[in-house]
Amino acid sequence: MATTRLISTLVLCLLLLLSSSTATHRRKIRSRRPCKQMVFYFHDILYNGKNAKNATSAIVGAPAWGNRTILAGQNHFGNLVVFDDPITLDNNLHSTRVGRAQGFYLYDRKDYFTAWLGFSFAFNSTQHRGSITFAGPDPLNKTRDISVIGGTGDFFMARGIATLMTDAVEGEVYFRLQVDIKLYECW
Amino acid sequence: MATTRLISTLVLCLLLLLSSSTATHRRKIRSRRPCKQMVFYFHDILYNGKNAKNATSAIVGAPAWGNRTILAGQNHFGNLVVFDDPITLDNNLHSTRVGRAQGFYLYDRKDYFTAWLGFSFAFNSTQHRGSITFAGPDPLNKTRDISVIGGTGDFFMARGIATLMTDAVEGEVYFRLQVDIKLYECW
Amino acid sequence: MATTRLISTLVLCLLLLLSSSTATHRRKIRSRRPCKQMVFYFHDILYNGKNAKNATSAIVGAPAWGNRTILAGQNHFGNLVVFDDPITLDNNLHSTRVGRAQGFYLYDRKDYFTAWLGFSFAFNSTQHRGSITFAGPDPLNKTRDISVIGGTGDFFMARGIATLMTDAVEGEVYFRLQVDIKLYECW
Repeated sequence: MATTRLISTLVLCLLLLLSSSTATHRRKIRSRRPCKQMVFYFHDILYNGKNAKNATSAIVGAPAWGNRTILAGQNHFGNLVVFDDPITLDNNLHSTRVGRAQGFYLYDRKDYFTAWLGFSFAFNSTQHRGSITFAGPDPLNKTRDISVIGGTGDFFMARGIATLMTDAVEGEVYFRLQVDIKLYECW
Repeated sequence: MATTRLISTLVLCLLLLLSSSTATHRRKIRSRRPCKQMVFYFHDILYNGKNAKNATSAIVGAPAWGNRTILAGQNHFGNLVVFDDPITLDNNLHSTRVGRAQGFYLYDRKDYFTAWLGFSFAFNSTQHRGSITFAGPDPLNKTRDISVIGGTGDFFMARGIATLMTDAVEGEVYFRLQVDIKLYECW
Repeated sequence: MATTRLISTLVLCLLLLLSSSTATHRRKIRSRRPCKQMVFYFHDILYNGKNAKNATSAIVGAPAWGNRTILAGQNHFGNLVVFDDPITLDNNLHSTRVGRAQGFYLYDRKDYFTAWLGFSFAFNSTQHRGSITFAGPDPLNKTRDISVIGGTGDFFMARGIATLMTDAVEGEVYFRLQVDIKLYECW
């Protein structure tokens, strides 16, 4: 009988070890399930010489063939825009601002529209405090992914992916982006 | 007696397994104790048309309403500044330079001073060799955190947080930042 | 005999636990062997007022003493260049383009050539789909390392180091970089 118990102990031990080592292995093949997911909208109103009061962004760099009031020819290649855009929880520009999208984008292709983004979401409310920083190319497809490269405060050490979707465009003045943030590293 | 030993073995095994699985869990709730911490100062002297020799930074982008010699109105919104600032171990501009803070900042708010930073600390001395790269929004509060997004050399694959503190401001020409770097991922 | 088995069970359990805890420890001292390595070339043709058709990059920011057609004095300090450069698998500009290197570089030292880079490799072919994003200082030595700060698609959540080597320079118009990408975090 002692032997029977012994065997059952051994089996139990092995099972436990096995489950523990499986867990270890699972972590190596890292989970692609986000540890945090949030959806926001942000609203960009580009300065065009006539909207100084409402504009939330401005051209600050242009190629030799461009200027800083009108986006340049050749698909705006070389235009660098600095922005401070309101972030909302829905697609209404006039909804409560929950944070600020701050940073820059630049147009980087002559024969098509594509952009490169370096910006952050800065939060300072009771709901969220801290920042999420994004960088990467924006091919301006229907949906496209850029990298979440860091975070502070509530988003301490965050990494992940943000899926961007252009939700509205009005001329070359207003555009609205939906941002689906999926963090895969949360601390 | 064999049964007694059997039970004690079982208990021991379980305890060991438990402790191992606790350790695993603890790693998931990752430690917020830095694996490396360093404090530096860097010194920015902005070109203003009269200090070509001493200037360590220059305006290279401005909105349509600005120029590249004087910071623009509306809290310098849209000004983009490139810098190559000396890094020192204390708050004295004339102390031994231990590295260079290189990159850019841009002012990104019309109704208040805030900035966005993309820069690196580049080291090439016996003490440190390699680089630490930072990015993120700078609300220009008393202290504020930005993200450490990468590193090379001695700082291979580094990630962390840097706490910035404006240590001195002289007009719109000189400012000094204290940077408290805390790395949470060290390789 | 039951006792003998008991002891052997115990020893086995301990050995298994030990091996499991060693594996855990090994992961802490992280491997510096890349989980993915790739070599590419990219080709930059800077707009100089005469090569509008072939140029893949353009000066879009300059200090007060510079302009946007000719790189500025003082080692181009303050020049900001936006680029959309073809990526190839060998050093031939006319080889099949496998992707696009998109983003910006800026010259950031008055007494020597050094740069700061923020750019991505954007792939959209059968071989690779997605992006790799780079940031960091470029001391323009023979070889130098910059950080891989993020990725999307096939390069989901990538982190690593890229070793750059200037492979060719022709005047201030054409240069070619070899990029040896080593990823240390693969998902």
